[in-house]
Amino acid sequence: MLSCRQLISSRLFQLRKKSILARVRASDYVEVLEEQGDLLKYPQVWLRDNCQCAECFHAATKARRSHWERGPLNVEVSQVTYNPEKKQLDIIWQDEHKSTFDLGWLRERDFGESTRKRYLEQVYKPSAQLWGKSEFKTVRREFQYQDVIQEDAVLKDWLEALAIQGFAILKGAPNDINVTKHLAKRIGYIKRTTYGDVFEVKSKPNAGNYAYLMTPLPLHTDMPYYEYKAGINILHTLVQSESKGGANTLADGFNVASQLQKLHPKDFEILKTVPVNWVDIGHDGNDSKPFHSLWRAPVICLDVDGRFTRINQNTTKRDSRFSVPLEQVVSWYKAYNKFLEIAQAEAVEFKTQAGDVFVFNNLRMLHGRTAYEDAPGNKRHLVGAYVDWDIIYSKLRTLKFPNAIA
Amino acid sequence: MLSCRQLISSRLFQLRKKSILARVRASDYVEVLEEQGDLLKYPQVWLRDNCQCAECFHAATKARRSHWERGPLNVEVSQVTYNPEKKQLDIIWQDEHKSTFDLGWLRERDFGESTRKRYLEQVYKPSAQLWGKSEFKTVRREFQYQDVIQEDAVLKDWLEALAIQGFAILKGAPNDINVTKHLAKRIGYIKRTTYGDVFEVKSKPNAGNYAYLMTPLPLHTDMPYYEYKAGINILHTLVQSESKGGANTLADGFNVASQLQKLHPKDFEILKTVPVNWVDIGHDGNDSKPFHSLWRAPVICLDVDGRFTRINQNTTKRDSRFSVPLEQVVSWYKAYNKFLEIAQAEAVEFKTQAGDVFVFNNLRMLHGRTAYEDAPGNKRHLVGAYVDWDIIYSKLRTLKFPNAIA
Repeated sequence: MLSCRQLISSRLFQLRKKSILARVRASDYVEVLEEQGDLLKYPQVWLRDNCQCAECFHAATKARRSHWERGPLNVEVSQVTYNPEKKQLDIIWQDEHKSTFDLGWLRERDFGESTRKRYLEQVYKPSAQLWGKSEFKTVRREFQYQDVIQEDAVLKDWLEALAIQGFAILKGAPNDINVTKHLAKRIGYIKRTTYGDVFEVKSKPNAGNYAYLMTPLPLHTDMPYYEYKAGINILHTLVQSESKGGANTLADGFNVASQLQKLHPKDFEILKTVPVNWVDIGHDGNDSKPFHSLWRAPVICLDVDGRFTRINQNTTKRDSRFSVPLEQVVSWYKAYNKFLEIAQAEAVEFKTQAGDVFVFNNLRMLHGRTAYEDAPGNKRHLVGAYVDWDIIYSKLRTLKFPNAIA
Repeated sequence: MLSCRQLISSRLFQLRKKSILARVRASDYVEVLEEQGDLLKYPQVWLRDNCQCAECFHAATKARRSHWERGPLNVEVSQVTYNPEKKQLDIIWQDEHKSTFDLGWLRERDFGESTRKRYLEQVYKPSAQLWGKSEFKTVRREFQYQDVIQEDAVLKDWLEALAIQGFAILKGAPNDINVTKHLAKRIGYIKRTTYGDVFEVKSKPNAGNYAYLMTPLPLHTDMPYYEYKAGINILHTLVQSESKGGANTLADGFNVASQLQKLHPKDFEILKTVPVNWVDIGHDGNDSKPFHSLWRAPVICLDVDGRFTRINQNTTKRDSRFSVPLEQVVSWYKAYNKFLEIAQAEAVEFKTQAGDVFVFNNLRMLHGRTAYEDAPGNKRHLVGAYVDWDIIYSKLRTLKFPNAIA
């Protein structure tokens, strides 16, 4: 930001009306000094690129229709004035094109950190609230299944809980094999996988997947062997085991990664850079087609902003082929061991009941189950379905900002 | 690799039979010296983690059943011998557990660069063959639609062309609105999006998407506003425009990125690190539900191995909200301009005919079309569908390695 003195001493167009001042700053920027003293500053190239006139912008499809060949690099502002009646900036360009920018529209697009942060947090993605074992009771959210199905406000709260806390439990779902389908449709649509649209978790003879045994399942994420790994897992308990086991285990993988980063930064570095081969080979689904899924990615994945985006962990799906240089192997195992140690220390255990739907972010949460025993008349039976985050965030935004949809 | 002298001077177990020598190397490794003199070297922790005995490995589900709690960090090899009759390594561990490893199985999992590279290239993903305008004729592959549907060998060749060259054209498809569905089903299944299962590209009154106008479409990728952007785009020409336009344009985005990296490394660095907001707000699909899609990613995306994984470019879907610090904006536009300049210089143009199915990697290729004019009795009409790469690579692997499926 420029000081007032710098501002007054600068060159070129200055027009002061009702305390709002707009001017060209050197050749690259246009500045707007607001009444309160805030300075808004916009690159000329960005303004021209986002000219909102009918020639440059197609309002019906919300699409830029200008500058398709190249960026608008070589056109400069010739004149800029602030129109206080219309609260807009009027620009005349050197090629005589004219642009008009609403001041509110410009403020929303201010390049300052607080405006950017607010947009990313409120519209793009709510920030994850990381939690450990001791915080489980305070972050645990429950909703009534029927409310989620019938009330948009509850649907919004549920999706926000999935985005922020990473999981939620729906109570009171009917004893209906289509509950997960109804929930997926309420959000948008199911993510199909090589296992079909929905999957049934129960002990099966000749199981093709380890989840279909009665053994314990260690903390894991589903489908690390997919580039497009399932976003959320919707697990509906139709029949719970009356045996001691069959409980869910859950740990916040982003919190585990964050703790690892603080406590063991070298191990964190290893787990975010060394790629692991995740694999799934078999037959499944209704048509029993063969599949050979393989995806290569580190245990901890971050985006270009440095935020956690995905945790990969699945002991049964980690390939014996570890395609990294030999000298990385032993240190990787040590780092992985630290990660698992924290995950196990931070894992919580709870047992869903028939009618519960346990839903969690599969890019973030590690989940598992304790061993159980089926008995005559008591066969544990869950139905699961996946939905992608593209669809969930889109739905959440349409609920939060219905006016964004023309 | 160790020299022979180092090998002979080292400590502990040595058993020489038929010229194959196995021994423990310090506490971290086991080595196998092969007859030809090749030295195979495996970390002990990796061997124990991948013990193939029935207690440690569940063959029916190809799943590791050991070491779920933690990595097997604290168990060392007590004794290792090579059994020349069975061509296997027999290991006794300090906790008295016994493991047996087939020598062929071990060789396939050698940590040496050539073995790793071969596996990643042959099984994981074939390397992309980057191409520019002058190479278009040599990389262009054509297949008969019916052959793809009926012959597994042709299906395999087609999918490999998509993986390597990034596109292919199928000829002789019937005048049937379900051709793209049949092709998607032949691979696996369609990727559904907010636009439905299949989409029809033709000029529409009150178009909700810019593609549904008769205007030119500049080079772009579909759906940069999805985290799980469509893998391939299958575009079936039912009716081609008899007007001068309606031709396809195509450029290899990975080649454009690679050229940018060589010619303008600073611009490349900017385009691979500065995130852009890609957005799509509207209504579409059969049920006309609203959507508000938003994904934040650089134009050029690489994986942890440094390979290109995804190009994002779509002028109509690039948000006017550019959520980056002000000082990054002008240099980003300059870099973006260079990228577009190379893309346009390397773009080819061709016009499909009715019965052609143009299929391309939507993570890699930039595609567009020239403007056209519908006429009475000649209304340009394409049908499109998407399939994800998870599904394509899986299918390709089952065709190349049917024996991997038990």
